[in-house]
Amino acid sequence: MKFATFTSGGKTFYGAVTDTGMIALNDAFPEWPTLFDAVQADGLATLAQAAEGKPVTHTGVQYEMVLPNARRILCVGVNFPDRNAEYKDGSEQPKYMSLFPRFASGFTGHDRPLIRPPESHQLDYEGEVAIVIGKGGRRIPQANAYDHIAALTLCNEGTIRDWVRHAKFNVTQGKNWDKSGAIGPWLVPFTEAAQLDEARIITRVNGEVRQDDVLSRMMHPVRREIEYISTFMTLEPGDIIVTGTPTGSGARLDPPQYLKPGDVVEVEVAGIGTLRNTVEDEAL
Amino acid sequence: MKFATFTSGGKTFYGAVTDTGMIALNDAFPEWPTLFDAVQADGLATLAQAAEGKPVTHTGVQYEMVLPNARRILCVGVNFPDRNAEYKDGSEQPKYMSLFPRFASGFTGHDRPLIRPPESHQLDYEGEVAIVIGKGGRRIPQANAYDHIAALTLCNEGTIRDWVRHAKFNVTQGKNWDKSGAIGPWLVPFTEAAQLDEARIITRVNGEVRQDDVLSRMMHPVRREIEYISTFMTLEPGDIIVTGTPTGSGARLDPPQYLKPGDVVEVEVAGIGTLRNTVEDEAL
Repeated sequence: MKFATFTSGGKTFYGAVTDTGMIALNDAFPEWPTLFDAVQADGLATLAQAAEGKPVTHTGVQYEMVLPNARRILCVGVNFPDRNAEYKDGSEQPKYMSLFPRFASGFTGHDRPLIRPPESHQLDYEGEVAIVIGKGGRRIPQANAYDHIAALTLCNEGTIRDWVRHAKFNVTQGKNWDKSGAIGPWLVPFTEAAQLDEARIITRVNGEVRQDDVLSRMMHPVRREIEYISTFMTLEPGDIIVTGTPTGSGARLDPPQYLKPGDVVEVEVAGIGTLRNTVEDEAL
Repeated sequence: MKFATFTSGGKTFYGAVTDTGMIALNDAFPEWPTLFDAVQADGLATLAQAAEGKPVTHTGVQYEMVLPNARRILCVGVNFPDRNAEYKDGSEQPKYMSLFPRFASGFTGHDRPLIRPPESHQLDYEGEVAIVIGKGGRRIPQANAYDHIAALTLCNEGTIRDWVRHAKFNVTQGKNWDKSGAIGPWLVPFTEAAQLDEARIITRVNGEVRQDDVLSRMMHPVRREIEYISTFMTLEPGDIIVTGTPTGSGARLDPPQYLKPGDVVEVEVAGIGTLRNTVEDEAL
């Protein structure tokens, strides 16, 4: 069972995703006005039960960022060994992970355009697996970390490269352009370790493979991410951790190849799905 | 008129602050369950009107972080000239400002303890003025920037110094420890430019002045902060910008002097107020 936030006829819904369309579940759960509320209440199993055997209510919908009202989104940077080497600064594998927050406003939904602003033509892709916290906690040991994950989804952690380097201590402004990235298409409940441990992530631009790696090669595995982040902040249900991107972003190609209007970017993980986005210049 | 979020008898309220106590306003505005909702609706003037002549409803209250459900808090780093020099890396005045998000969970309220965790004894203070956006916008020109500010408040942008340097590209983990900083005591509506342009910020630890500077010396003035941030993200009512701290944080003293349990830190700006916090070791 998969769950999405979507728009139809100018209204926003959430519900279960089937091969033939959506089964809207809002009306059945007035106490959970959004999918985020359902996640906060640890309600994905309840939603799955409610959707069982129900007819499709919506077809031809528009996907939204899967949790548009997510409050905290933390991204892990430089988390694959070759990618650390890509920075060519002679540094060894870092002891601690690089982390940066992104606001929900920086993301759009599946099948919708990433927005390239007039201020820069350096819009770049980064394919990543995102985890959604289902059970909060502080100082969570690695051994229990997976118990705190409610669901998985995909992220194109789209970045405006030149703005990442505006300031010396932070990447904030290159990572928070309105709708420069995407999260979706849907949430897949996390039920067994293999969903992460055996995941392979592939990013394609116009059909050409640009990133292809396995999560088992991460320098800071997901269990460690949860342990480390929960050391300094109490994780809460609905928090999203974007776990890190493999080598092969457009900035690291020679010459760099940034996204341009008309491009199609796909981030694919078997068992989760394919997050597909086009690219458009911002309408001013 | 000043507005605060506070707790009394285990319940959370918001309302107007007077010399003799609080005038709770929640009940009068069921459409605005929190002060954040009132700010989002541009409602501070309406609250002021409603409080006019009303009796005090609560005394002996506990202050909360002034907007505990704020969604986006952006902090400006290294924004006073001497502070850039403090980094002693020979860099000139930076062209762009350093920016980093903090989650609301990293802040407590006025008169409450900043929490020093067992993982580090390098809890440090940073006194700052924070602005609260009242009118959203994208690519806001400096000339109109002040029109977008609803209110001012104070921030002790408390930091765990050694964790700021865990990663090479970001300060995230040193800046987001649970209740390591504070925002408050209250919101003061922003009605004239002089409230910012002539503001002088003083930070004291146990009565000793550690930071003392004027906002007019900022390298990136508040008008520029609004212009720059709104270039990449649409500002929304309720967004908080923490505008930058003067020289004199504990890490820069020789030898460094970090906060320890029992210390009292005060951040004062005439016309806004004094944000006072004690320091406690985390209860484990």
